[in-house]
Amino acid sequence: MTTPVTYELIKECGQTGARLGKLHTPHGTFDTPMFMPVGTLATVKTMSPEELKAMGAGVILSNTYHLWLRPGEDIVEEAGGLHRFMNWDQGILTDSGGFQVFSLSDLREITEEGVHFRNHLNGEKLFLTPEKSIHVQNALGSDIMMAFDECPPFPAEREYLIDSLERTSRWAERCLAANKHPDRQAIFGIVQGGVYEDLRKRSAEALTSLDFPGYAVGGLSVGEPKHLMYEALEYTTPLLPTHKPRYLMGVGSPDALIEGAIRGIDMFDCVLPTRIARNGTCMTSEGRLVIRNAKFARDFRPIDEDCDCHVCQTYSRAYIRHLVKSNETFGFRLTTYHNLHFLIKLMERVREAIREDRLNDFKEEFFERYGFNQPNAKNF
Amino acid sequence: MTTPVTYELIKECGQTGARLGKLHTPHGTFDTPMFMPVGTLATVKTMSPEELKAMGAGVILSNTYHLWLRPGEDIVEEAGGLHRFMNWDQGILTDSGGFQVFSLSDLREITEEGVHFRNHLNGEKLFLTPEKSIHVQNALGSDIMMAFDECPPFPAEREYLIDSLERTSRWAERCLAANKHPDRQAIFGIVQGGVYEDLRKRSAEALTSLDFPGYAVGGLSVGEPKHLMYEALEYTTPLLPTHKPRYLMGVGSPDALIEGAIRGIDMFDCVLPTRIARNGTCMTSEGRLVIRNAKFARDFRPIDEDCDCHVCQTYSRAYIRHLVKSNETFGFRLTTYHNLHFLIKLMERVREAIREDRLNDFKEEFFERYGFNQPNAKNF
Repeated sequence: MTTPVTYELIKECGQTGARLGKLHTPHGTFDTPMFMPVGTLATVKTMSPEELKAMGAGVILSNTYHLWLRPGEDIVEEAGGLHRFMNWDQGILTDSGGFQVFSLSDLREITEEGVHFRNHLNGEKLFLTPEKSIHVQNALGSDIMMAFDECPPFPAEREYLIDSLERTSRWAERCLAANKHPDRQAIFGIVQGGVYEDLRKRSAEALTSLDFPGYAVGGLSVGEPKHLMYEALEYTTPLLPTHKPRYLMGVGSPDALIEGAIRGIDMFDCVLPTRIARNGTCMTSEGRLVIRNAKFARDFRPIDEDCDCHVCQTYSRAYIRHLVKSNETFGFRLTTYHNLHFLIKLMERVREAIREDRLNDFKEEFFERYGFNQPNAKNF
Repeated sequence: MTTPVTYELIKECGQTGARLGKLHTPHGTFDTPMFMPVGTLATVKTMSPEELKAMGAGVILSNTYHLWLRPGEDIVEEAGGLHRFMNWDQGILTDSGGFQVFSLSDLREITEEGVHFRNHLNGEKLFLTPEKSIHVQNALGSDIMMAFDECPPFPAEREYLIDSLERTSRWAERCLAANKHPDRQAIFGIVQGGVYEDLRKRSAEALTSLDFPGYAVGGLSVGEPKHLMYEALEYTTPLLPTHKPRYLMGVGSPDALIEGAIRGIDMFDCVLPTRIARNGTCMTSEGRLVIRNAKFARDFRPIDEDCDCHVCQTYSRAYIRHLVKSNETFGFRLTTYHNLHFLIKLMERVREAIREDRLNDFKEEFFERYGFNQPNAKNF
């Protein structure tokens, strides 16, 4: 089957399971492994599309659930689709809405047909099905749509996970059938199965038989310890086709991005860098920097002395601290810009290390400097 | 006396009292009449310096009172001054702090020496004097400093105004004496006198005898009807030297900018365009546009169809409404950018009209289209 989104494998790392590749979409190509900034409501919070381009973001994620509720997918469609609505001419991936239905809404009831729930804005009763999710994503016009799945919490009963992943597989098939624009919008399947190797296998087999152009590893980063996530990746990615992209959903801490890439993941997304930025926390090559801290009041160095982003080339910790303490929007623009640039640049360095067969060495150096190797290392 | 800030009169309007000119400062030259965006806390709320430059802002105003309290003028000085602190290499005018002491603080007591008050952040007792105001402004390093004055409310007793303006004149002299950087920072005097012609004359005479390089008309736009403000300008600007700039403080509605220019004003500032933008109100060539209004949900036209700003060339009312309704920062960036561009462009058109001796005609056309000629015209 031809598909509008294709993965080009360029090279495998000689030192790890990482892959260097390119993802071709109807709105341009981006290099993988890649981190995708999250633009929940048709905007990456505080940023302009020009700024995202300047920092090298080639693809963003937007949330189907949120856009379905506000402004409504019909308005986005009438505007000419999400790309045009928000002035973003590069790749867009939309999630299915499933995760938000399970995490944000109240009184949900799961049936074979779909999920009944009350939305988080006004409590209105809604019903989300695989068909509805794809209908909304078709209206948004994203390049990559995600299949509507159930994302169970951690821990979850084995028996529950089996029911859930089998339903998710049936839903995946319905998603494929519902796609009105298979020529320009691809669907990625989502492998579930929690932290059970045999269940991941069962889910992967069901989904790969449907021949999606890409696969996500879902149901991770939902509260389990990181070592369990890494283990799950170790036995899950080998179950996925080599020549299709693999996307680890909801992961964006620097350590997990590197560990994920090492285990063969090509795409990541997370609100972490933008969310902590709006609280004044910055990622730097020497670890977290909490800009509100009094010690930065007269610190005229950049956020990260090793960073070449516009913010670090231009503004001091003292200035950004002043803005953030004063609750000035521009302060949050600067911390957001820096954090997104930091992760996008990190993935660039990861790709460079894959190219040079030294991703494990890179990880050791990065972790050492960042402080991830310390016993009390603060994770993001 | 040589001064670091000089006014070059290029041409007077053949149809009104307006003047076309240039103000030369240590940080570049800008054309007058000019509107100055307000950057209270070393940031024009939501904007970047690059964006301000892109829209043609050649000078901004920053607030001495606010920067004195946060982050403290010593930190700004240590950073290399306000220009460097906030990455703005063009003109900066700082007010004296007087207006904020009178409008924001509690329990103020005015003495000949200065003003005792409690600040609006934590109620701490502070004392602001002419010397202290200039000390702070010297530390900030603004190109134009304002003399520390008392800005009485409207209405105010005639006897009170006399006391006040005479004290303001004595304070003005103390400000001049306190300036540690007369080579690179100029002080403008502020003419008071409320809406009494003879008091304006008395104030203007006292201040012009001190030979300031520029003069503000203060104590207007403090609650009086607009026609009284215009009358006051009519008898005040002729009292001021022709070859020095005239600055009307706190005025930024489109009608008052044009009326002020017609009466010989060269510089204006106001939080109006930025403040209403953060409430979702836009200035357009056809009047106010409240972007939250439901009728814009599916309106894919720009905010102002006659506007050539980046926002109007790129984003729709529907998109901006969605962002503003969702309380997304980027929405407020867009409305702020547009409103500031609108006023800066308006002043460009005012200058063009002066050049062509048709400012009165321009006013008529503008007012007609904007709706200012309608009996129930909403003023900003």
